[in-house]
Amino acid sequence: MENREHIERLKKLLPEGAVLDAPEDVRGYGYDAQAVEGLPFAVCLPASTAEVSAVLKYCFSCGIPVTPRGAGSGMTGGSVPLYGGVVLSMQRMNAIESIDEENFVATVQPGVITTALHKAVEAKGLFYPPDPASMAFSTIGGNIAENSGGMRAVKYGVTASHVMGLEVVLPDGSVIHTGSKCIKDVVGINLTPVFVGSEGLLGVVTRAWLRLIPLPPCKKTARIAFKSMIDAGQAVTDVMHAGVVPLTLEFMDKVAIGSVENQLHLGLPLEAGGMLIIEVDGDQEQTERDMARVLEVCRRFPLLEAHIAANAEEQADLWRARRGVAPSLLTLKPRKFNEDIVVPRARIPQMLEKIADIGRRHRLIIANYGHAGDGNIHVNILSGNDEAELEQAHQAIGEVFAAATELEGRISGEHGIGLTKKDYIELNVDETTLAFMRKLKAMLDPKGLLNPGKVFE
Amino acid sequence: MENREHIERLKKLLPEGAVLDAPEDVRGYGYDAQAVEGLPFAVCLPASTAEVSAVLKYCFSCGIPVTPRGAGSGMTGGSVPLYGGVVLSMQRMNAIESIDEENFVATVQPGVITTALHKAVEAKGLFYPPDPASMAFSTIGGNIAENSGGMRAVKYGVTASHVMGLEVVLPDGSVIHTGSKCIKDVVGINLTPVFVGSEGLLGVVTRAWLRLIPLPPCKKTARIAFKSMIDAGQAVTDVMHAGVVPLTLEFMDKVAIGSVENQLHLGLPLEAGGMLIIEVDGDQEQTERDMARVLEVCRRFPLLEAHIAANAEEQADLWRARRGVAPSLLTLKPRKFNEDIVVPRARIPQMLEKIADIGRRHRLIIANYGHAGDGNIHVNILSGNDEAELEQAHQAIGEVFAAATELEGRISGEHGIGLTKKDYIELNVDETTLAFMRKLKAMLDPKGLLNPGKVFE
Repeated sequence: MENREHIERLKKLLPEGAVLDAPEDVRGYGYDAQAVEGLPFAVCLPASTAEVSAVLKYCFSCGIPVTPRGAGSGMTGGSVPLYGGVVLSMQRMNAIESIDEENFVATVQPGVITTALHKAVEAKGLFYPPDPASMAFSTIGGNIAENSGGMRAVKYGVTASHVMGLEVVLPDGSVIHTGSKCIKDVVGINLTPVFVGSEGLLGVVTRAWLRLIPLPPCKKTARIAFKSMIDAGQAVTDVMHAGVVPLTLEFMDKVAIGSVENQLHLGLPLEAGGMLIIEVDGDQEQTERDMARVLEVCRRFPLLEAHIAANAEEQADLWRARRGVAPSLLTLKPRKFNEDIVVPRARIPQMLEKIADIGRRHRLIIANYGHAGDGNIHVNILSGNDEAELEQAHQAIGEVFAAATELEGRISGEHGIGLTKKDYIELNVDETTLAFMRKLKAMLDPKGLLNPGKVFE
Repeated sequence: MENREHIERLKKLLPEGAVLDAPEDVRGYGYDAQAVEGLPFAVCLPASTAEVSAVLKYCFSCGIPVTPRGAGSGMTGGSVPLYGGVVLSMQRMNAIESIDEENFVATVQPGVITTALHKAVEAKGLFYPPDPASMAFSTIGGNIAENSGGMRAVKYGVTASHVMGLEVVLPDGSVIHTGSKCIKDVVGINLTPVFVGSEGLLGVVTRAWLRLIPLPPCKKTARIAFKSMIDAGQAVTDVMHAGVVPLTLEFMDKVAIGSVENQLHLGLPLEAGGMLIIEVDGDQEQTERDMARVLEVCRRFPLLEAHIAANAEEQADLWRARRGVAPSLLTLKPRKFNEDIVVPRARIPQMLEKIADIGRRHRLIIANYGHAGDGNIHVNILSGNDEAELEQAHQAIGEVFAAATELEGRISGEHGIGLTKKDYIELNVDETTLAFMRKLKAMLDPKGLLNPGKVFE
């Protein structure tokens, strides 16, 4: 059958306007934040579980590849329609269906924007902690597909920690329900986490039950500059050992500090080897006590400065240093490869040394920053556009992944594998375990039609 | 082949003394705390992953049922060798292989006794929170198979919240590795939670990486008696809404109070409708503040008493009321059916009313107690041995499960489905989702040899 015919059939399955096929309309659904490109012949915009099921059932029976899509803000090409076919955009299913204030559960459709959920629950004194950097435009469905992290994961966990149950349409169009609104639930096999972080390979989430917590009333923020990068890495472990679990424990290295200072002129000490931005939350007393303990731990190392924000405005100001890093790096070099490796937390100093060595050997600028409290570092390898330097950068990426693996770390802490890391997955997952994942995929999707070509395919 | 021959082959696969086949030796491996009985023809006691793999490979190829077993302390018949065959006891694999104090990770074999792990990590200032009631003899492997909860789950989560990674021998003897020692990890499909709570149907855990946290230095304990059972249930929700997350939030109803008082003479107010035992943890200041808040919330209701323990001895004393409940109930009636239903927390008062109504209609004594902070209630239906009363009890069990389901609850919060609840699983899991679970089971174990006849089989 021709694509033309498929489009006509799909248009009959969905309400008017819910199937796009004009080239200018579908092009925008072909890439993500990584900018790898694909081109679907149609984009379906279902508004209900039944419509998602109808599209999947049709495509499954005709052998058409389907790539589910949230906001396309992924970092590893996960939502790119590599083999064309149909893009299933969940943007119209964007209702917050209910917020159960008594039981701390939000019921949402997958197209809800992450910050929209934040605002809605915070208005009721509740809190949905996951905060991926893209939260202003990323969707909950995308967050679930990628098991998104963010800065607050160190205290409250990643997306997976907050997904209690899911409605999922399987590749053949059948609909399952996993989990429940109960905190404890041991009825049958726990299928919810199979889908969280499965990068759209196993099914399409059409509804999620999300665990909320009471909104902590206060926050305190500190920005602390260390003479040595290794000291900053060590302080991360020492803070956790002091019994404080900070809301955020962010790290920036010398290159990151220099880059952001150069662009934003915040008065950061350029001689600093590393900087931590630490936030604690709770009630007034707890935040004061926790912050005092954080400072006590950090002051065991030679510091260049320690700023504590006195109010919300100063807090925002301290955060500018951290939030400005990613955009500023492109002022140093035209290309950057942002790899989100993770290691057991106490091995951050070792990992930073290994990265420094890799940079020296390949004569590359590497900027490290990120969620040190989780052991999750964004290793940004910078490069020019000439082939020789790009080749060095690609070699360095492989070496960074190998170094993380050596330290019992992983090649991705929050961005997923998608397209860009699939060549490296065997560093972390052995053959028998990969075979299990592939078997599970084949069980649900024997023709390999749902988000094909990703992760381990 | 005769069982005799299988025994000889198994003896060749394992070191001397690792295969038991004398009737007096194997009988003890045929039942669990629920006392459903089976009889294996042999018990294998492997001491390594390779030995587990060898036994499973052999049994898989010969079509012999294998029932994995921890301490046999399960409550739903999950470790009963229903079809005979081989019991695979993990008791010899009981090493705590390492405690990584820097990264808060314990690496353990499945046969480690839960309290042995508690002691080992607490000696290093670390904490492994899951505390099923059977922890003095239950094993970590059993806890993982059942996704065990306990009293501290309300603050720190169930076993699943603490399992970072697993080594698992699949039914065919192949070995996979899931997860890692990293807090964040999005490499491939998240297989760890598939095995946690899978009740021994999918594989045999041979090693686990467990997440630890710093040991909170202080605890405060209160025992609070409410005039009304419904008030006690409401106070549970109100405490959580006050921003306090207690370490434990345990509930006892009037029957439970009367029963334990009658046996232990602790001076409990017999006219109380419900009692809460609430513990908060943290540092000195935090526990004092949290406890003050807990009392403030509870005092909004008519109380009969509110005891705060001044020291560890008094704490233990307050706990005697709660710990004494289960054994005391058999002084009221010779039989009890302990069903661990769970509902969204704020629906506890509604659930208690429904249970009271079921008890009245069937003229049964029902005692309710348990982990109210999680919405997890142990509904103990008491009965004599005569058939008419037992029949009423069985009808009441079905009605309790249906009532929990109506409130978006589940038929099990921590005991699992095993044998005793499998007739009820369809109350909670729809047909398509059950089909998914069965397909997953069949994918790994096409002949249905691993722990056959349980959960959804």
